[in-house]
Amino acid sequence: MKLKIKKDLLLENLNKVSKAISTKNLIPVLSGIKFELTKEGLTLTASDNDITIQTFIPVNEEDMTIDKEGIIIIQGKYILDIVRKLQAEYINIEVIDDLKILIFAENSEYNLNGISKNEYPKVNLELKDDFISINNKIFKTIINQTSFATSNDESRQILTGINFKINGNIMECNATDSYRLARKVINLSKPSPVEYNVIIPSKNVLEFTKILGDDEEDVEIHIFNNKVIFKYDNVIFQSRLISGSYPNTTNLFPKESILKITVNLNDLYNVIDRASILTFDKDKNVVTLEIKNDILIMRSSSSEIGRGEEKMNINKNNDEDIKISFSARYVMEALKSFTGNTVELSFVGEVKPIIIKDVDDDELTQLVLPIRTY
Amino acid sequence: MKLKIKKDLLLENLNKVSKAISTKNLIPVLSGIKFELTKEGLTLTASDNDITIQTFIPVNEEDMTIDKEGIIIIQGKYILDIVRKLQAEYINIEVIDDLKILIFAENSEYNLNGISKNEYPKVNLELKDDFISINNKIFKTIINQTSFATSNDESRQILTGINFKINGNIMECNATDSYRLARKVINLSKPSPVEYNVIIPSKNVLEFTKILGDDEEDVEIHIFNNKVIFKYDNVIFQSRLISGSYPNTTNLFPKESILKITVNLNDLYNVIDRASILTFDKDKNVVTLEIKNDILIMRSSSSEIGRGEEKMNINKNNDEDIKISFSARYVMEALKSFTGNTVELSFVGEVKPIIIKDVDDDELTQLVLPIRTY
Repeated sequence: MKLKIKKDLLLENLNKVSKAISTKNLIPVLSGIKFELTKEGLTLTASDNDITIQTFIPVNEEDMTIDKEGIIIIQGKYILDIVRKLQAEYINIEVIDDLKILIFAENSEYNLNGISKNEYPKVNLELKDDFISINNKIFKTIINQTSFATSNDESRQILTGINFKINGNIMECNATDSYRLARKVINLSKPSPVEYNVIIPSKNVLEFTKILGDDEEDVEIHIFNNKVIFKYDNVIFQSRLISGSYPNTTNLFPKESILKITVNLNDLYNVIDRASILTFDKDKNVVTLEIKNDILIMRSSSSEIGRGEEKMNINKNNDEDIKISFSARYVMEALKSFTGNTVELSFVGEVKPIIIKDVDDDELTQLVLPIRTY
Repeated sequence: MKLKIKKDLLLENLNKVSKAISTKNLIPVLSGIKFELTKEGLTLTASDNDITIQTFIPVNEEDMTIDKEGIIIIQGKYILDIVRKLQAEYINIEVIDDLKILIFAENSEYNLNGISKNEYPKVNLELKDDFISINNKIFKTIINQTSFATSNDESRQILTGINFKINGNIMECNATDSYRLARKVINLSKPSPVEYNVIIPSKNVLEFTKILGDDEEDVEIHIFNNKVIFKYDNVIFQSRLISGSYPNTTNLFPKESILKITVNLNDLYNVIDRASILTFDKDKNVVTLEIKNDILIMRSSSSEIGRGEEKMNINKNNDEDIKISFSARYVMEALKSFTGNTVELSFVGEVKPIIIKDVDDDELTQLVLPIRTY
């Protein structure tokens, strides 16, 4: 293998695949990045067995000169640092003596020990003919609005993922840790010929969204039996799926409500944020909300520290009053997922879920369970 | 105690003293901030027994209204968070029922449990008549250029401090961890009537420099037998001194040199930074520098990872060549302390200290010991 490549271009692509470099040293070859040079261009692959990321840099006279094709595995951490820190426009990479890699530019010369391509696991990143397409910004928004509600508890595998249900042109995403639930429903511009109901690990899909740019490029979602492949720009990102069946969440949503209030999102967020200061020392940072006439009162107390009370004006849909306690953190995280100015909170009762929606947007629903304080 | 005070002013002063709030819960009252309200204004004090910080906010019609004098200790973490998060121009603080503190502003009302002033340790922050004065920016620079070279090893107490030697109008500051040494010598604008030789804990004086602003205000240094008090603006900062005698460092500096080179500071820094990539896995990140004719060659190698070589042009004062190995991190940290463009490195021999100076500034000297590689 022998090539000369623009530094910034190589660095950008190394950064993309680097997220999949294994930091555990169980299988040493997985701490490397696979460089695969053909007449068509350079393919970089990294995998930690959980996710696999591949990018392709097509040959282009100005960006890359290919002198000799070949395949080699280079230690990910070191090649990344060397390329990042080299102050040159172009970098030369050459394999000499089978497994010795020479990296040089201007007055800098590095010799790295490579790993044989034979040690690298086989990776099959073949795509499907029928896939789902979503604008990358919309995709990023869906993940940011749902992933925070998944569980971190590895003993509850299924809840650590986001449930994707695709039927025709409807895609429904659910995330829950059993205390709160985030649901986003969108219309696909092109219906899916196949029906899907899969669970994608939340941390993997979050990692993928970090690669997404600010452009209007689509994300392709290729769903297989036990894995999913996302394709975006020149990047292919593969994740395993979580096996098992996701709980049916539709029954959780109350059909009716006894009271709906509308309130400025930032004001409500700040009121909960302040009231929760006094709950820092506790596991469940419980605050109590009381609606009395047109006033919302947010209270918190701790026998050791003291107590707090915040008031704000609200609009109601009827004359009902209510008093309900919940985790300040969960409601604040739910509120943060909205982009509008005004949210609607629906109440069914003191021990029933609170539903939060944007008044101008029906796609996103956040549900938070109350906490009994007596 | 009862007062109304501008939120931003109170927050600014709470932030200053908060650095001294104890995070260990050994003495509960030390997690509090002492509020002392007199006709003259509000004094805030925090202390963790190692450092004590006090600020004074003088009364001023627009900033503060004093309704009732008094003293109370308020939990530092909670008062700080409440004041930070309140969205009001003015905040009211009132002691009711002896130890209950009421904090309110507009629609927010907080009741905190206070601690009696009788539990707070006696703090004597009396100043001296003769003290040393230094421009605050110069003081900050001295500390930044020396503190990094102190030891973190608590079993070598003396080396965790910066040695201040003041004689007439000369102030010499030394910091060393026994592998490298930073020395800064400045002329005081007003000579000190007393001679001092004290060791100030590096982390305490670094904490103090974070309070210093960007103005031309002087720092006053009041040195006592076992403590030092810094005064700046409305802040009084007290630290213990480290007892014991600081090693005599003057003998460490070689009188002569066999070779001096001058080199661009940033270029040299980047060359060491890159070469050291291959030494990340080791405790001592050793690189080897070779001067051969007018070329500087920086080498590093690791049997597992590979080897690197960087070249750059230099100017020399004679025809000598040299080869010397050192810790990349120590030399990089020493280089970072200079503000000019060009530095001079002096060599005495392969196993003798390397001396680094700015070619245009005689005040700062950095010394790094070489590492034997054979």
